[in-house]
Amino acid sequence: MKTIGYAAQNATSLLSPHAFERRALRNHDVAIEVLYCGVCHSDLHQARNDWGFSTYPIVPGHEIVGRVIDVGPGVRRFKLGDTVAVGCMVDSCQHCDQCHDGEEQYCREGMTQTYGSPDRLTGEITHGGFSKHIVVREEFVMSVPEGLELSRAAPLLCAGITTYSPLRTWGVGPGSRVGVIGLGGLGHMAVKLAVAMGASVTVIGRTEAKAADALKLNADHFLVSTDEAAMVKANSSFDLLIDTIPVRHDVTPYMPLLDVDGTLVIVGQIGPIDEQPTLPLLFGRRRVAGSLIGGIAQTQELLHFCASKNVLPDCEMIRMDQINEAFERMERADVRYRFVIDMSSLPTAPGTAA
Amino acid sequence: MKTIGYAAQNATSLLSPHAFERRALRNHDVAIEVLYCGVCHSDLHQARNDWGFSTYPIVPGHEIVGRVIDVGPGVRRFKLGDTVAVGCMVDSCQHCDQCHDGEEQYCREGMTQTYGSPDRLTGEITHGGFSKHIVVREEFVMSVPEGLELSRAAPLLCAGITTYSPLRTWGVGPGSRVGVIGLGGLGHMAVKLAVAMGASVTVIGRTEAKAADALKLNADHFLVSTDEAAMVKANSSFDLLIDTIPVRHDVTPYMPLLDVDGTLVIVGQIGPIDEQPTLPLLFGRRRVAGSLIGGIAQTQELLHFCASKNVLPDCEMIRMDQINEAFERMERADVRYRFVIDMSSLPTAPGTAA
Repeated sequence: MKTIGYAAQNATSLLSPHAFERRALRNHDVAIEVLYCGVCHSDLHQARNDWGFSTYPIVPGHEIVGRVIDVGPGVRRFKLGDTVAVGCMVDSCQHCDQCHDGEEQYCREGMTQTYGSPDRLTGEITHGGFSKHIVVREEFVMSVPEGLELSRAAPLLCAGITTYSPLRTWGVGPGSRVGVIGLGGLGHMAVKLAVAMGASVTVIGRTEAKAADALKLNADHFLVSTDEAAMVKANSSFDLLIDTIPVRHDVTPYMPLLDVDGTLVIVGQIGPIDEQPTLPLLFGRRRVAGSLIGGIAQTQELLHFCASKNVLPDCEMIRMDQINEAFERMERADVRYRFVIDMSSLPTAPGTAA
Repeated sequence: MKTIGYAAQNATSLLSPHAFERRALRNHDVAIEVLYCGVCHSDLHQARNDWGFSTYPIVPGHEIVGRVIDVGPGVRRFKLGDTVAVGCMVDSCQHCDQCHDGEEQYCREGMTQTYGSPDRLTGEITHGGFSKHIVVREEFVMSVPEGLELSRAAPLLCAGITTYSPLRTWGVGPGSRVGVIGLGGLGHMAVKLAVAMGASVTVIGRTEAKAADALKLNADHFLVSTDEAAMVKANSSFDLLIDTIPVRHDVTPYMPLLDVDGTLVIVGQIGPIDEQPTLPLLFGRRRVAGSLIGGIAQTQELLHFCASKNVLPDCEMIRMDQINEAFERMERADVRYRFVIDMSSLPTAPGTAA
């Protein structure tokens, strides 16, 4: 199927229209017209090859909401017209213990990412949701439950599951004391989800600047990490800290905030964190962990959770041709809290599918 | 009660004989004649004020096995002649949640350490087991079960519980895959205990040098951390790594050895660890944790476990007057695996208790 998207041709080029071919439907494939696609900081990183493993042309986008326009003959779970979603993964080995446990993101053979990964059969590099259409095997397609506002659901597929998964892994519920470090795309989802789970939620920021925003998101408290007295007072008062800071940083100031057996989970930074003293780890059996998105079943669970609790990200809708400007604004942290591309703004190129 | 011990008078002095007074028995106190005292690396650190909070004179020693020679009127659990043990703590608040949970080492008000801590009533600085006698409230005295070889039991009170506790916290048992990093006092106990729990145990060292020793301790495997091919092959093959390295180091090479949800527990180093990349944390939901000794009930459990499984440290018995030489040899890692002081080698000073 011919389609059109926005691609970076190299690490320094702007994103621009790019016509390309989606694979012909395999037996279990679902063809999707992309309606909305969220813009994740990792799209920016990968477009610019910040992590060193990008291949070009690259069509980013892994927060995808769309409508089924065709299905392979073996597809049972979806039919034409269904509203569906695709996240960061489009394939995995499907036979290892992790895949069997619904943890495809930790597939022993490595998951296939929605863009920039070789297809498991042909080796062709996958292209993401900054495009009019996408073709995905049905095991990696999720249903969008009725009642979930389509135009705002897209960021759940990465920002949502990235924060929902650790909240579930560490058993957050009523009575849990959760701190959220950083209040961007991931952080604001962590707050909304933890609040919806019944936790007591504190946003932790470097200055008072985001205090009002935090309370607007229904966080219970705001803690200024540079206020030494407040930090000492908050000593040992959290079960879980979700650390969404997307750059190199020092976790040391946050560790004493954890109670005995508490965990700080890094979800934002891919790269180094600073050296740290072991004292807060030893004197409190505290832990530093990481967490990567979540499995397909859990992402589906998240969509149902958000539909039932009416939890949705705060989004700013943009046109496809505003993506470069959006990237620039993301670099300045000038977004509350997630850009979503309305894909109807991308004209269909002559000769591509309707 | 007058007694005698070995003390450092300042950060640069050798340990030498030091006569001092043990407190008169309080209602719930037990007076103990020290029979054996293990020598821990932290004794050396604190004698030399490596951590900056030592007070002098300091009488080290927190791996204590002895015999009850007197009891306060309120003591119910011990009687004259009982064989008992004392570890790293001699008091805690006894009313916080941690104390109620048997985790006195994480007492909200701070535990009282066996030496170098202010007594909770008088503020007098506690003195440790490098002495003929010690007086301890009964809640912090443990029974030495019959059948446990007294001369080798002492190191269980610190090296033993420090490694036993994380093995229990992280649920090690038959089928668990445990790696032990470093093979000193702590490491060799971790191996023996994990083997006795039925785990598959691998010792991880920088060179082949300790391979034979590891297998002699009944470890199943030895892994050379500088052998890149072997390390890659061992990727994702451990549930738990017990990191006993007692100096600043880099945990990065070890993290990929952990399976999904696996934990590296630091028990040796108090101080900084190097910066680390988050990738192994994220791609595998791995964790770095710390763990500090263990509670009194768990230490008692350990003593019973070791008696029933015949698990004992490998010790080299020394006289009290060999302590300075022992410290020197510990600095060169020239001990397999723990020095234990035979306290009968310390003559009773004139005028002290028998």
